[in-house]
Amino acid sequence: MRLSQFHLRTEKETPADAEIVSHQLMLRAGMVRRLAAGLYTWSPLGLRVLRKVEAVVREEMNRAGAIEMAMPSVQPKELWEETGRWQKFGPQLLKIRDRKEQDYCFTPTAEEAVTDFFRQEFASYRQLPVNLYQVTSKFRDEIRPRFGVMRAREFIMKDAYSFHVGDEDLQREYRNMYDTYTRIFTRLGLKFRAVAADTGAIGGSASHEFHVLADSGEDALAFSETSGYAANVELAEAVAPGARAGATEQLRKVDTPVQKTCEDVAALLGIALQRTVKSVALWGEDGFVLALVRGDHVVNEIKLAKLAGLADYRLATEAEIREHLGAEPGFLGPIGAKRPIRIVADRAVAAMADFVVGANESGFHLAGVNWGRDLPEPDEVADIRNVVAGDPSPDGQGTLALARGIEVGHVFALGRRYSEAMQCTVLDEAGKAVHPAMGCYGIGVSRIVAAAIEQNHDASGIVWPAPMAPWQAVVCVINPKGNAEVAAAAEALYRELLEAGLDTALDDRGLRPGPMFADIELIGIPHRVVVSERGLAAGTFEYRARSAAESESLDREALLSRLLAR
Amino acid sequence: MRLSQFHLRTEKETPADAEIVSHQLMLRAGMVRRLAAGLYTWSPLGLRVLRKVEAVVREEMNRAGAIEMAMPSVQPKELWEETGRWQKFGPQLLKIRDRKEQDYCFTPTAEEAVTDFFRQEFASYRQLPVNLYQVTSKFRDEIRPRFGVMRAREFIMKDAYSFHVGDEDLQREYRNMYDTYTRIFTRLGLKFRAVAADTGAIGGSASHEFHVLADSGEDALAFSETSGYAANVELAEAVAPGARAGATEQLRKVDTPVQKTCEDVAALLGIALQRTVKSVALWGEDGFVLALVRGDHVVNEIKLAKLAGLADYRLATEAEIREHLGAEPGFLGPIGAKRPIRIVADRAVAAMADFVVGANESGFHLAGVNWGRDLPEPDEVADIRNVVAGDPSPDGQGTLALARGIEVGHVFALGRRYSEAMQCTVLDEAGKAVHPAMGCYGIGVSRIVAAAIEQNHDASGIVWPAPMAPWQAVVCVINPKGNAEVAAAAEALYRELLEAGLDTALDDRGLRPGPMFADIELIGIPHRVVVSERGLAAGTFEYRARSAAESESLDREALLSRLLAR
Repeated sequence: MRLSQFHLRTEKETPADAEIVSHQLMLRAGMVRRLAAGLYTWSPLGLRVLRKVEAVVREEMNRAGAIEMAMPSVQPKELWEETGRWQKFGPQLLKIRDRKEQDYCFTPTAEEAVTDFFRQEFASYRQLPVNLYQVTSKFRDEIRPRFGVMRAREFIMKDAYSFHVGDEDLQREYRNMYDTYTRIFTRLGLKFRAVAADTGAIGGSASHEFHVLADSGEDALAFSETSGYAANVELAEAVAPGARAGATEQLRKVDTPVQKTCEDVAALLGIALQRTVKSVALWGEDGFVLALVRGDHVVNEIKLAKLAGLADYRLATEAEIREHLGAEPGFLGPIGAKRPIRIVADRAVAAMADFVVGANESGFHLAGVNWGRDLPEPDEVADIRNVVAGDPSPDGQGTLALARGIEVGHVFALGRRYSEAMQCTVLDEAGKAVHPAMGCYGIGVSRIVAAAIEQNHDASGIVWPAPMAPWQAVVCVINPKGNAEVAAAAEALYRELLEAGLDTALDDRGLRPGPMFADIELIGIPHRVVVSERGLAAGTFEYRARSAAESESLDREALLSRLLAR
Repeated sequence: MRLSQFHLRTEKETPADAEIVSHQLMLRAGMVRRLAAGLYTWSPLGLRVLRKVEAVVREEMNRAGAIEMAMPSVQPKELWEETGRWQKFGPQLLKIRDRKEQDYCFTPTAEEAVTDFFRQEFASYRQLPVNLYQVTSKFRDEIRPRFGVMRAREFIMKDAYSFHVGDEDLQREYRNMYDTYTRIFTRLGLKFRAVAADTGAIGGSASHEFHVLADSGEDALAFSETSGYAANVELAEAVAPGARAGATEQLRKVDTPVQKTCEDVAALLGIALQRTVKSVALWGEDGFVLALVRGDHVVNEIKLAKLAGLADYRLATEAEIREHLGAEPGFLGPIGAKRPIRIVADRAVAAMADFVVGANESGFHLAGVNWGRDLPEPDEVADIRNVVAGDPSPDGQGTLALARGIEVGHVFALGRRYSEAMQCTVLDEAGKAVHPAMGCYGIGVSRIVAAAIEQNHDASGIVWPAPMAPWQAVVCVINPKGNAEVAAAAEALYRELLEAGLDTALDDRGLRPGPMFADIELIGIPHRVVVSERGLAAGTFEYRARSAAESESLDREALLSRLLAR
């Protein structure tokens, strides 16, 4: 591509309304333009990157035996009512009413549509297994679309759906997709990690998320450095600690006049934060619940919600707290409640001795607290906290480390939830109508573009992994109109690289070197070659890898061997 | 592709609810499945064909210098209000309200969005010309979606938009796109015709439609067999005939007791239909209008609406007719009106002598009518009829023939309508802000698939033009499980063809020859090769072109030379 015939528009200034680096750089590089809240136009430059990602996704899905198809964006309410998701999906489902007052939605995902296709097209176990996928626009009406294409409302998703007569077959395809995703993200040149994930509202028996690792990632991931264990912190189990130590201190009331947090109390008392206990007041199905976690731990809301009676829990109001504990927030604790309450202790708390809790009295905490002696054993002991770095790995091998990630892929063993709800059956080998087991497998194609930038950038701009770059190499011409020889040499090199199969651009825009190089660095082309009068005289080209600090002077042979890896 | 690993599902019976052959065959071949009214899922087979069309469109658009980008499907009302199209587009515009009660639409076309992109990205004549295109889903909320993907509500369109400082530049790009479309439809192997078209509501200075020729086409096309003239009948000019002949008959009233049509009157009187005149009663801006066309001609509504005061004309009601002509429909004419009326005569009628019209009296016509003598000259003489076969070509070369077509492409020289409405300017060479001239260029990608079938089918199914076929060739194996040698030979041939670059399928489904061949014919694969035990023994393959009546026995060399054209 000759850049004089392309459309590039870069900006030096960081846009004021872009909060994260990928959004800033995508706007500065002119990859996307905002059309409305959460709606982005992909410029020619942005689309080149998007298409590279799509191509890798398609190649690997095809290689894995999945078959591409395409379902409409607009789907009828009736289908979504068959599974109850017309209501359950909530306001993220963009609803549409047509001229005949019929209801539709702009599809955020296509379990219903693909199951409808399947039940019309497939009848027998002989036609299975099958894995059908599409790469299409999806829509989620996010309440607060932000971060550019990272959390846009309209986005490109690859979604695949597999159908199986038996669970074993589903497990085999699940593994196949897991391996396929691993190949996709490896081929894209991304540092990523697959982690076990919560199956959440979609349900099903197994689920893994694929995360691009980046410090700015919204998700926290836990993994063992000595084994393959990896899980989203939402899910990662905090294993039970050793047995509780014996009491060595007496219960005592301590003055904490303004100390309302565990940190402040520990500092005042001169003790480790790990000796304090945080009391979190909740309201569940059966009323007031006090959840206890160690002062240095954080409550895990997803784990809490899995406990009996807490599926739809909320934080208790101050009135509820005063009624049950007779105290103000900041001084709460499990001892001396005014009314019966349920006490749920994290495993770590249940194993503590001589600990500190709020006294249920303003300005006071209790220290030297011990289970059994100073208060009854907790009503329930459970894993209700996030793991922290250094926790033992749940698989018993090594300790956990933490990383942050951006979710770009998700594989689910769905089971029969959709096929049962939609009365979708096939005949098995015995001639019996059975509901097929399903898997679903998503990749956030447009999000990958942003995630790759979060992971790969520097002060000058984007540093694309080569497989995602808009072009692999660019040949820059200094003063093309002023020197025909230079222009011809650049043209010849450009053509030679193209013919050798290298996706190459020719920067023949005639910019001065400063702005030209700044553009090329900003848009992140992996290899830059400069053809200049001086170099031509010396028989050399100036070569610089985007990731390198310096440029090198290479003769023709060395240059070609570098670029074409031959 | 091994068909055992693919998903094919064909049907023998013609679906009852499919009215046209392409819809019937697409359903029977399992290319699409209806999800809801006007919404179709593309099966893996259908998608293969769609992708082939898309690929040709993209290649030729890129070759022509257009640059691909992608705009969101969901677009904000504010943009559409800038051009007034939020209202003007009418109920075909699918409107959407999001969770924040903001209004959007599912884009049927993207003049507004691309102009918005352009005005943010382009500032100077130096960046022009530019032609931006996308291949995306569009939506038109058709009141009566029908004919499958031929007139679906959600469909795939390639839409391109070019921007120019000067009109000459626009004309150059218009021509470039015209030539590109010609290449696209030629490469797709379709019989097509480009015709001058009415610029209609979109406005602009020039417009051509590209039609796939098919007897079932909704549009009538007129073209000269001896020159390049071609136009939609909506637009094609019926040239003025020679001078009017002199009167030879006397005016006389004739009994036509039940003869209300020109055909019946001509039959009764024993004269040529061309001697009769049809009177069409209309109601325009200034009241009653009588439009006169020759008995064998048809009024052209688009031409009529271009006359002064008739932009929004309608047919007159019977009450209006009785009030102005004092007669019932069937016996109307221009002589003896009860109230002042405007008479618009088609050019052919104005040149007639001794003609027959209704007498404005039930049961009677007037014969031997002559202008000037029996009634005043018409208030207006204009071209208000459809051309018919045999009319002189408007370019003066030869006579017109008619054909029917399916519109699959449209190029428009839009001018400055959108850039002015949206206050989009660039600086010209003199540093002055000017509104760029625009062109827009659409191709109905998904409709091409149906149109190709309308044009290319036989009693056994689809006969794809090779460039659109899901596969170029299929290797059929008879009894693959029963004979390892046959299976191995088929496999070897399949691999050899693939490696030679021929998009080949292997039919290893193990069907009996009858159903297997019926499938292959129905889905229209251009080349079929059968590997059988008997053939293998004789050293031959059974080859049949989809378009051929018979199969041939070819040895390996002859087969390869036929398939690979070497």
